[in-house]
Amino acid sequence: MTYCVGMRLDRGLVFMSDTRTNAGVDNISSFKKMFTWSVPGERVITLMTAGNLATTQALCSTLDERTKTLDQRDPTILQAPSMFEVARLVGHTLREMIERATGESSQTVERAFTATLLLGGQVKGGEPRLYMIYPEGNFMEATKDSPFLQIGETKYGKPILVRAYDPKMTFEQAVKLLLVSFDSTIKANLGVDLPIDLQVYENDTLKVGSERRFQRTDADYEAISEGWGDALRLAFASLPDPHITPLA
Amino acid sequence: MTYCVGMRLDRGLVFMSDTRTNAGVDNISSFKKMFTWSVPGERVITLMTAGNLATTQALCSTLDERTKTLDQRDPTILQAPSMFEVARLVGHTLREMIERATGESSQTVERAFTATLLLGGQVKGGEPRLYMIYPEGNFMEATKDSPFLQIGETKYGKPILVRAYDPKMTFEQAVKLLLVSFDSTIKANLGVDLPIDLQVYENDTLKVGSERRFQRTDADYEAISEGWGDALRLAFASLPDPHITPLA
Repeated sequence: MTYCVGMRLDRGLVFMSDTRTNAGVDNISSFKKMFTWSVPGERVITLMTAGNLATTQALCSTLDERTKTLDQRDPTILQAPSMFEVARLVGHTLREMIERATGESSQTVERAFTATLLLGGQVKGGEPRLYMIYPEGNFMEATKDSPFLQIGETKYGKPILVRAYDPKMTFEQAVKLLLVSFDSTIKANLGVDLPIDLQVYENDTLKVGSERRFQRTDADYEAISEGWGDALRLAFASLPDPHITPLA
Repeated sequence: MTYCVGMRLDRGLVFMSDTRTNAGVDNISSFKKMFTWSVPGERVITLMTAGNLATTQALCSTLDERTKTLDQRDPTILQAPSMFEVARLVGHTLREMIERATGESSQTVERAFTATLLLGGQVKGGEPRLYMIYPEGNFMEATKDSPFLQIGETKYGKPILVRAYDPKMTFEQAVKLLLVSFDSTIKANLGVDLPIDLQVYENDTLKVGSERRFQRTDADYEAISEGWGDALRLAFASLPDPHITPLA
């Protein structure tokens, strides 16, 4: 499995992804699931992937190679005039990869080659955008009402996002919130694990912002993982005990 | 969907279940998913159900009717000599119900008639036991290492159980923990909802313990739901902000 979150803040976008991939519990590897293309001053595009690793690697290689072939007719993600057009291109390419893999295969394992993506960034002249792209190639955008998008193993880490998200957060606070959400997921599910990749994009800078990889022994990660356990137990103790027989 | 948790404490067992059933989001009803059979001073058996409603209703009706037919050859759950034998009987009956429904159906919807159960209680002369029963009729027991069992929509509410469970808890503390776990699930998933049913069993009493139904307007539930949001935000604020660029 996988866990990736993209989050819209008033000041920009935050991306976080784990690195665990597995085919069964006895075939575990670590792969980066966050990919960035940028033309400083003009555009930044960040992609996070969940699903079949062959599909997502084919997708990223294809997107990458097309940006290097200058004399192609179709615009690449480095030429598309808006984030919406970038999302269309990526969605179309994703669908192409899945159909190609399914068509070549003699297996009929349903949805075996599927993948889901989070795509965010900004193209000069437009607003910063954050999209979730489905295996069928269509996509939806994060809005003020639904300001964060999750893919992969999304359930364990959702309650804290629902409770503590605030659009006015600083980047540091947002990263703290995401680390708590990731830590809750990692503690409950073997399919998600460190290292965790982080990338921040500040509105209208049109360059890649802070990037960081959190290892298990990272002092910040340990402080949050251990501190959160203690803080949760204190929070829990502070609540009143309910009555276990019906109230009169 | 559904959410049910059974929990082993040093002092007894706690059962909690929601009441939401749905076939799609436009066909929602409320059904009790907790069922109890008891012979005071001799045995108490509590069952919680997740899955196909026709299957679980057929199961409970069948178990119930068999206890009323005195001259049957097979022992009923009121006669089985141990909780292990009760679990075998219930598992066998569950499998029978699923096979009957599948056999009669011309549909081939995979696992459409499936259900999973939590079974707990005590038979005189034995220890209190808590089991999870699978659609195939086999089952596993909660142990000191895995002292709580969940069925249905289990993921949202698991992180807080993992963090805050303690076998020495009072029943009130355990109910508080379960209400937090249920509230986290209800806030994140439409398929789980109030009213919430609670039942407590105190070791060696051999009678049904406290029972309670929490409605949405319940003062205890509201105190925990609102208090937990505030306590979480305070706990979150108490954690140190991580660095968003790599540490030197």
